[in-house]
Amino acid sequence: MKVISAKHLNEIHQIVQSGRVLTDESDRYSYSFDGSFGTFLPDVVIQTKSVQELAELIKLANREGIPVYPRGQATSLSGGPLPVHGGMVFDLSVMDDVLEIDEEDLVAVVSPGVLTASIHKAAEEKGLMYPPDPSSSHVSTIGGNLAENSGGPRGLKYGVTKDYVIGLEVITPEGDIIQTGGKTVKNVTGYDLTKLIVGSEGTLGIITKAILRLIPKPPATASLMAEFINLVDAGRAISKILSSGILPSKMELMDRASIIAVENYQPMGLPVDAEAILLLELDGHPLALKDEIVKAEQLCMSVGANKVKIPKNNNEKEEIWKARKLVSPAIVRIKPTKISEDATVPRSRIPDMCERLQQIKEKYQIHLVVFGHAGDGNLHPNIICDKNDEDEMARVEKAVTEIFTAAIELGGTLSGEHGIGTMKAPFMEMELGKAGLDMMKRIKEAWDPNHIMNPGKIFPEPGQKLELK
Amino acid sequence: MKVISAKHLNEIHQIVQSGRVLTDESDRYSYSFDGSFGTFLPDVVIQTKSVQELAELIKLANREGIPVYPRGQATSLSGGPLPVHGGMVFDLSVMDDVLEIDEEDLVAVVSPGVLTASIHKAAEEKGLMYPPDPSSSHVSTIGGNLAENSGGPRGLKYGVTKDYVIGLEVITPEGDIIQTGGKTVKNVTGYDLTKLIVGSEGTLGIITKAILRLIPKPPATASLMAEFINLVDAGRAISKILSSGILPSKMELMDRASIIAVENYQPMGLPVDAEAILLLELDGHPLALKDEIVKAEQLCMSVGANKVKIPKNNNEKEEIWKARKLVSPAIVRIKPTKISEDATVPRSRIPDMCERLQQIKEKYQIHLVVFGHAGDGNLHPNIICDKNDEDEMARVEKAVTEIFTAAIELGGTLSGEHGIGTMKAPFMEMELGKAGLDMMKRIKEAWDPNHIMNPGKIFPEPGQKLELK
Repeated sequence: MKVISAKHLNEIHQIVQSGRVLTDESDRYSYSFDGSFGTFLPDVVIQTKSVQELAELIKLANREGIPVYPRGQATSLSGGPLPVHGGMVFDLSVMDDVLEIDEEDLVAVVSPGVLTASIHKAAEEKGLMYPPDPSSSHVSTIGGNLAENSGGPRGLKYGVTKDYVIGLEVITPEGDIIQTGGKTVKNVTGYDLTKLIVGSEGTLGIITKAILRLIPKPPATASLMAEFINLVDAGRAISKILSSGILPSKMELMDRASIIAVENYQPMGLPVDAEAILLLELDGHPLALKDEIVKAEQLCMSVGANKVKIPKNNNEKEEIWKARKLVSPAIVRIKPTKISEDATVPRSRIPDMCERLQQIKEKYQIHLVVFGHAGDGNLHPNIICDKNDEDEMARVEKAVTEIFTAAIELGGTLSGEHGIGTMKAPFMEMELGKAGLDMMKRIKEAWDPNHIMNPGKIFPEPGQKLELK
Repeated sequence: MKVISAKHLNEIHQIVQSGRVLTDESDRYSYSFDGSFGTFLPDVVIQTKSVQELAELIKLANREGIPVYPRGQATSLSGGPLPVHGGMVFDLSVMDDVLEIDEEDLVAVVSPGVLTASIHKAAEEKGLMYPPDPSSSHVSTIGGNLAENSGGPRGLKYGVTKDYVIGLEVITPEGDIIQTGGKTVKNVTGYDLTKLIVGSEGTLGIITKAILRLIPKPPATASLMAEFINLVDAGRAISKILSSGILPSKMELMDRASIIAVENYQPMGLPVDAEAILLLELDGHPLALKDEIVKAEQLCMSVGANKVKIPKNNNEKEEIWKARKLVSPAIVRIKPTKISEDATVPRSRIPDMCERLQQIKEKYQIHLVVFGHAGDGNLHPNIICDKNDEDEMARVEKAVTEIFTAAIELGGTLSGEHGIGTMKAPFMEMELGKAGLDMMKRIKEAWDPNHIMNPGKIFPEPGQKLELK
């Protein structure tokens, strides 16, 4: 689907003076996929650090109706950066030169290509913390995190990416460069374009700079692992702890299938007969943690935990968290294709959601593993399959559809942190209703009348269905 | 400026079956002003708890081009609820029947007429906390707080109203009832309409229900009052404390003019020769606070505090906070008119902003008192004047304009928490630039093509200037 002519290409070469224009098929192929499904070859890939050049390219694209796709490291699990209609890919991972930590104002100023883990490190060197920590933080760019509004295990206590973005520099779909927000935590001057653009998955503009809020780094952490024979008891433990005045920084759950997968992958003495493991991290003042971790242990025991383990030192602490970290590598050993969902429910509905997931697993005879951020209701039901097995994939597509339906029926949402992209677009109206989806479309139409910014994402195209190929 | 005909009124009466339609001039007069300037008589005032009836009224308004103004308790300091073009006022303070605290999911579900203080109380009874605490919380509705994205002293640690809103029920400007977000903290399904509508000052729809995120109530608080001979040292104390890993729940500043005003109003031994008082509140685990409050004291002394007072019990604690609470009542004793600004700067620029304010005070010979939320850069320069003194008010108008300019030049914003309303609309382009303001207008146009929702707010009308009358 070639949408760029030789004349366009000539103009692109004239605009991009400081960077590179990639047109070889082998180069373009590297930009045709992401962490989800499907392969779509872009016509051209642009690498430049110049905001001005990008703005000129967007003016060209807007004039000529050429699709533009911003892209970071393409770890997206929902298809965000896929160039589904051909056109130009902007490789923003090259824009990695700004990473300033402003200790006085407790903010970081970053360019979109900086890795999120680099921001964590730079902040920590100054005794500060950038709380959002998606599991991909060592390989994903902050630009991608901003586009998708990434979450992570710290969501319950600290919120998500959006909660830490207070200012942006953005190129609009018509090529204007605008500033939103600023360096102040409080700002009510007009509509909140910052929080509208964060999470809009590249459909409303290109983020070329961001101002992130930082907080003082909590001086200490404490952890705990609790085993439960019944999943429902793990849910009760979560509620008990939260209503006791303790707000953990992480509350992670692993179901029996994930426990078994990890234990088969790397034996570490996990309880393969337990229905659930709950992993807790508290952070704060060391004196407070000393008291709170014992209280959390007692609360777990009081609702029927089989065993609670409090690590005594850093080595032991790393050991218990290793179990959670190994889930992803362990499950891809079972079968080659992993579909990581992030349908999210209100915390109190986690036991119901787990029951629904169990039913779906049996109905469609799929390999389903459930783990994730129990504290904020953001479970990750992962389906392990083989994308070359057509019969299995047909069952998987049906199972995924039912997972979305279950989440919405339980008062939850299609996506907690992975985004809509191409994969979940067909389900948008189910959650938002016709009028709700229409209000979103109006914003898109008003900002991007020629539909050039990341087309094919978020909004379903006529007759679009889920396809896992 | 009558825009409602007898035919319209007849239709309004037919729609409003469960509530009241007020048309007497004496009734309407009570709805003609707010906490800012100007008096504008609406044609009709509607009181109903029925979302369906309100939606029907908006359909009528949209069809006939009748302005609609949502209104809570009208404590607005920027003109948000003023019916500047006549039409219908919706008195949403009557919608006060829903206030549910969901302990399992850590959320509150509220209708817009509930007082914010009632939410605080209901949450605390369950061991939970709704952190946003604008100073008006005992008299303002949550609906007003949502429309204006209210702040308060806890902004530094806990953020503002928007940070706690995860779902809304909204009537669109064309009369559709939509749901945004839900009961999950994580939700990335499409554009974030929730955070777009919160803070849009009633220009994008009518909020008829909200889902608010709650947190476990911190078990203890500790306070401290520090006196500084030099204002710059108070600024250094703030930075020192924050970079030491302590994140106070409140950090309030009072300048010499406010200290003197309070001491004249109610003598309580405040240091009238100090340039600044810094008031700190920490919250969290009692063991942590015991340690941190001493550390904060040492940090204040290390940067030249004249004296630090740590209250030993609740009575003493109330005593030191009384000084801050008395600023507002104290200053209105000086002259009858109080203009409370909320121009906000990055925290590190507070000393610069204080210097600029001092220059403006001298240049225009005005009575200027500065106090407010120093931790998040949200100072409140208050001008005390007499609105019947034309000569003085002309100088005040110029001074206010210069305060806005100073805030923006220092990298700050026109409004940290009071909103734009009518008062600051003329200054929007100065902060946002032409393209930035245009992107906001496009959203308004797309959602409200007939300009019926709270017209005259946020966006400047041709030739509009600041008027304090």
